[in-house]
Amino acid sequence: MEDNFSELALNAKKASKQIAVLSSEVKNLALLNIAKNIEANKAKIFEANKADSDSAKVLVEKGEITQSTFNRLKLDENKMRDMIQGVNDIARLEDPVGKVLLKRELDEGLVLTKISCPIGVLGIIFEARPDVISQVSALAIKSSNAVILKGGKESVNTNKAIMAVIKEALDNTENFPKNVLNQVFTRDDVAEMLKQDKYIDLIIPRGGNKLVKFIKENTKIPVLGHADGICHIYIDEFADIEKAKKIVIDAKTQYPSACNSVETVLVSSKIDDSEFRSALESAGIEIILTPESWHKEYGENKLSYKRVDSIEEAIEHINNFSSGHTESIVTENYEHAKLFMNSVDSAGVYHNVSTRFADGFRYGFGAEVGISTNKTHARGPVGLEGLTIYKYTIEGNGQIVKDYAEGLKSFHHKDIK
Amino acid sequence: MEDNFSELALNAKKASKQIAVLSSEVKNLALLNIAKNIEANKAKIFEANKADSDSAKVLVEKGEITQSTFNRLKLDENKMRDMIQGVNDIARLEDPVGKVLLKRELDEGLVLTKISCPIGVLGIIFEARPDVISQVSALAIKSSNAVILKGGKESVNTNKAIMAVIKEALDNTENFPKNVLNQVFTRDDVAEMLKQDKYIDLIIPRGGNKLVKFIKENTKIPVLGHADGICHIYIDEFADIEKAKKIVIDAKTQYPSACNSVETVLVSSKIDDSEFRSALESAGIEIILTPESWHKEYGENKLSYKRVDSIEEAIEHINNFSSGHTESIVTENYEHAKLFMNSVDSAGVYHNVSTRFADGFRYGFGAEVGISTNKTHARGPVGLEGLTIYKYTIEGNGQIVKDYAEGLKSFHHKDIK
Repeated sequence: MEDNFSELALNAKKASKQIAVLSSEVKNLALLNIAKNIEANKAKIFEANKADSDSAKVLVEKGEITQSTFNRLKLDENKMRDMIQGVNDIARLEDPVGKVLLKRELDEGLVLTKISCPIGVLGIIFEARPDVISQVSALAIKSSNAVILKGGKESVNTNKAIMAVIKEALDNTENFPKNVLNQVFTRDDVAEMLKQDKYIDLIIPRGGNKLVKFIKENTKIPVLGHADGICHIYIDEFADIEKAKKIVIDAKTQYPSACNSVETVLVSSKIDDSEFRSALESAGIEIILTPESWHKEYGENKLSYKRVDSIEEAIEHINNFSSGHTESIVTENYEHAKLFMNSVDSAGVYHNVSTRFADGFRYGFGAEVGISTNKTHARGPVGLEGLTIYKYTIEGNGQIVKDYAEGLKSFHHKDIK
Repeated sequence: MEDNFSELALNAKKASKQIAVLSSEVKNLALLNIAKNIEANKAKIFEANKADSDSAKVLVEKGEITQSTFNRLKLDENKMRDMIQGVNDIARLEDPVGKVLLKRELDEGLVLTKISCPIGVLGIIFEARPDVISQVSALAIKSSNAVILKGGKESVNTNKAIMAVIKEALDNTENFPKNVLNQVFTRDDVAEMLKQDKYIDLIIPRGGNKLVKFIKENTKIPVLGHADGICHIYIDEFADIEKAKKIVIDAKTQYPSACNSVETVLVSSKIDDSEFRSALESAGIEIILTPESWHKEYGENKLSYKRVDSIEEAIEHINNFSSGHTESIVTENYEHAKLFMNSVDSAGVYHNVSTRFADGFRYGFGAEVGISTNKTHARGPVGLEGLTIYKYTIEGNGQIVKDYAEGLKSFHHKDIK
């Protein structure tokens, strides 16, 4: 088991070097082939998914998994169409690899270039939703990374079927290297994955709070993602109350289990909030005035509610209790909006809009691999750019440092547009 | 001890929120004041350094520390001038915070902005060189980060004296927040620092391989830096041998203990290397034909030497044994150069120049906090940009996601220049 995993990870590393130099044309052709092959094999995938959902139905009846888990693993024509569309969309995006980020002549005939390149091998761990496989595979291919995927055990038949269809498409794509996409299945595999810091460069967990926390605490490999989504909305003394109602109701009820839905509303004590509260309650929101914790993520139509005496108190509360995901201020006062947006230390800081806008598609990134609350590498919705890093190249003609150290030559550092 | 450290870290976190919103003017004034105060207190610093170097001299005689450690901790007029100059230089650089990285109208009146911001609290751990304190303090201030510094124990008096002079300058700078700069002194402090993932956002170790490895293995906080510098030069079959001699001799002898000096030379078996080897030996380089390990970092005028049958073999050797720092190819064949630069997975990949160019000052970054071999966040020489991350803001006028989800409104994603 352990040896097998190391071998798989080593082969993924080797594959990552091959896909790193693959042309955009071959990568895009591979993506189009994947989309076509999913279309052609829909029946096979639905069949595998029926096996999973039949078993899952029994587990729901026994109370071992939730109805929401069942809903996420069950595929339908809409999800299938979105899977195919998603892969085709990624084929059309700009190649994130090989972009010149900086070009500078250090001295005559000595040119520095900062150029984007893939990270290497990604470890992706996700729960329930089998449609993640095609999305993540497409993102990895487009960004020239190899990937090791571990999906939820409830959808194992679907996961295998989708991956088989994807791999068949890659086998039929000329010059596409082997071992770029890899799938593992067990909890032991996850434990092994977290140890492979020699071969795996980045772990991206997509799933519940518990899964993400466990992973962050058990690996030396960098982890990109978010455990909690404790988003705040502050209703300022200068708020337009109609906007406040509309925004909070949207941020709570439009999709309560989303990570970017609001969990805590802070309301200036300088305003009469009776009408505002009634509106929330009429919209079916339960207002919790004494929450068990200000860190609470409800995931349903409930929210923690607090009166604050000043914008400074609101900012301090948020910086203490937020998970660093997304926060919004409702105010007509520009200075207050500016202070809030500068001072709140979260991936997204909004003025007069719903927190639910925190999403790669809404930002126009075309696709997202997840939302990060990290303070390094990538923050907020992460698209293809977050799956790349860069290298520096220098092209010269025999230059040596001694000449510069001894003053025979000197740098002139001219940026080249 | 433990409680004290948590309190210090918490205060640093609070200070990080204050310096995050400090104007460029106040930050630059603080830097100029620091430079002036170092100049005004040179005698005090030299006096403290004399105490350290007197003790260190005894340790050198006893064989407990190396002459090179002694040299690094001993200050002289040149180092003092460089310290002052370094701080003034950083004052003149562009503010890395508040830069607009992307501005996009998602829909009419709904504007997304990606804006650079500080990371938060940096933990910097370094050995021997007390002049690092002013440099790192200046970089932290300029990038609006708070910092907790731990220097080498051999220079503790100098470290305290320099920090006192810097803090005095900050106390005399109007509106500069308290607790931005913090210094700790013991091994226990380092152990505590590595645990503070709640308050410290990034650890930057500057020092030997052992120190960096220990830190990477003992913290959940992201670490930016490099443990090893095992740099390679490949002499291709199409190399200009005169260039090859010049480049390898520079990369090995100009400063053999630097992390960017060459450790392994790979030579195409298709060329007669007798003249090349003689030239290296004449330059005082010892050629090791059977190294104990291809991972060896000599730090002196020795190098591992291997014949390879093809450029592919050279690339594979490098990708297996390199530390991912900097590698160079010597060739007059453009296709080979291109293949090498695309396929070698290191922070720096050069063509016909010495590996010794891998340096933030030589790249024109003005200052560097270190060189990273990470595959995420920042790679290669890290300047001020590597000490920042970004946040996304959205400014709107009451927009909610429901309208877009239900098709009443739609995104148009227009970038604003």
